[in-house]
Amino acid sequence: MTPYAYDYRHRVRYRECDPMGVVYHTHYLDYFEAARTEALRALGLPYKTLEADGIIMPVVDLAVQYRLPAHYDDLLVITASFADVPGVRVRIDYTVRRDGEAAVLATGHVTLCFVDTRRHRPIPAPAHVRALFEQALVEP
Amino acid sequence: MTPYAYDYRHRVRYRECDPMGVVYHTHYLDYFEAARTEALRALGLPYKTLEADGIIMPVVDLAVQYRLPAHYDDLLVITASFADVPGVRVRIDYTVRRDGEAAVLATGHVTLCFVDTRRHRPIPAPAHVRALFEQALVEP
Amino acid sequence: MTPYAYDYRHRVRYRECDPMGVVYHTHYLDYFEAARTEALRALGLPYKTLEADGIIMPVVDLAVQYRLPAHYDDLLVITASFADVPGVRVRIDYTVRRDGEAAVLATGHVTLCFVDTRRHRPIPAPAHVRALFEQALVEP
Amino acid sequence: MTPYAYDYRHRVRYRECDPMGVVYHTHYLDYFEAARTEALRALGLPYKTLEADGIIMPVVDLAVQYRLPAHYDDLLVITASFADVPGVRVRIDYTVRRDGEAAVLATGHVTLCFVDTRRHRPIPAPAHVRALFEQALVEP
Repeated sequence: MTPYAYDYRHRVRYRECDPMGVVYHTHYLDYFEAARTEALRALGLPYKTLEADGIIMPVVDLAVQYRLPAHYDDLLVITASFADVPGVRVRIDYTVRRDGEAAVLATGHVTLCFVDTRRHRPIPAPAHVRALFEQALVEP
Repeated sequence: MTPYAYDYRHRVRYRECDPMGVVYHTHYLDYFEAARTEALRALGLPYKTLEADGIIMPVVDLAVQYRLPAHYDDLLVITASFADVPGVRVRIDYTVRRDGEAAVLATGHVTLCFVDTRRHRPIPAPAHVRALFEQALVEP
Repeated sequence: MTPYAYDYRHRVRYRECDPMGVVYHTHYLDYFEAARTEALRALGLPYKTLEADGIIMPVVDLAVQYRLPAHYDDLLVITASFADVPGVRVRIDYTVRRDGEAAVLATGHVTLCFVDTRRHRPIPAPAHVRALFEQALVEP
Repeated sequence: MTPYAYDYRHRVRYRECDPMGVVYHTHYLDYFEAARTEALRALGLPYKTLEADGIIMPVVDLAVQYRLPAHYDDLLVITASFADVPGVRVRIDYTVRRDGEAAVLATGHVTLCFVDTRRHRPIPAPAHVRALFEQALVEP
């Protein structure tokens, strides 16, 4: 299967930069949230409709590796990739670059879990969610 | 009546400072939230118990005037003052200084509104809330 | 003179919403920063080039009035308006609406000051900055 | 060697909680920053003096594992542990609990790098920094 990948663009804001003049490390996780939200929307799965169906997706674990700094006003491309059809969990991998440049500034991943809000319990991804991923992962 | 005033201390964090090397302006509003929360707790009114009673307090308006910059690792004193017994609204005034210094770095205010969560409507402050303020405003 | 107005669009993120299910009040100020940055860029004045010329623009004062809540995943339109050619200070007014809707969710303003970074002193807006505003304010 | 561990207390703020009513995952990294800053200060090494000596410490990598949610107004204890005398890098491990409770809410680590600001290059931790850690790691 080919991973499903989505490119999200973000302009670095002044409030995101620290006294070193570079993006403070935690903001990459905000970029990751925006990237996966738009990746899911493009797949036909707005997160909002999942919540309306009684499903929430808390974060289980995450990791980030920082290689090169990003600066104020940089236009970043955050690529969110899904390699597998989700089970109870779904893992999204991320790569951050400047728009039009090959150098990787940061990589990372975030694992989310499907949780039934009524029973407060982890559940497998619903059939229609799995179907959307199955389709996206075979079609490049 | 003498205003009820409460001093909240906050150490400036790296993530709160921008490329100018000073606290980015929006973080003062985070300091204000922490200051009013602790001021209300000291008064005998943890915000959490209000929510448990079906009351939320959205922000209606706010303003901040910035006079002098705060720097990384500064220990700030944020003074939250309540001048009146709350009606449907409560206004809190703020002054920010460095610990042990007289110079005022910033001033501001935030107005909150009492809202009944079941009926989604503004309501007057409950009697026990008014009573706590009446007591605090006469006793200096 | 007709004010120079610029519309900036922002999708509300999960991290921006609080337990009331609405956008936490401080994030409007982040939206204002993004809106004025893009408004200045559209005017031919990227803030980054000002900094490269030895000018910074700290915030002097701000105010926000909240009328109606914004929710998760709303697509907001933040209108940034400049009514006057800047002197030592420049005031930007803001209005927040949902995309395609007339109802105003919030209004506000932020006043910035031109500061020479070498002498650490307020200065009048440079001639080329004034010229850009003069042109934008006469041409609707 | 026994790790050097430091307990930092933090009261969960409203702005840190999301529509699920729990602390949004990125804020744990803010808690980690505050915890390591105070841990270093207690060791006799305020980060501010490192910067004054021409050293900055960018984040190289990080990871967080989330086990149980934290709620609004919880008083959290964030334990920052240093297991080794720093070389070019220093790794800090974190555990988050509620004050007075044994259950672990989250674990994680952040790796920082010592960088010479004049030459923009990684350098080994200065001798006086190593000495402070050597002392702290033998004395329990």
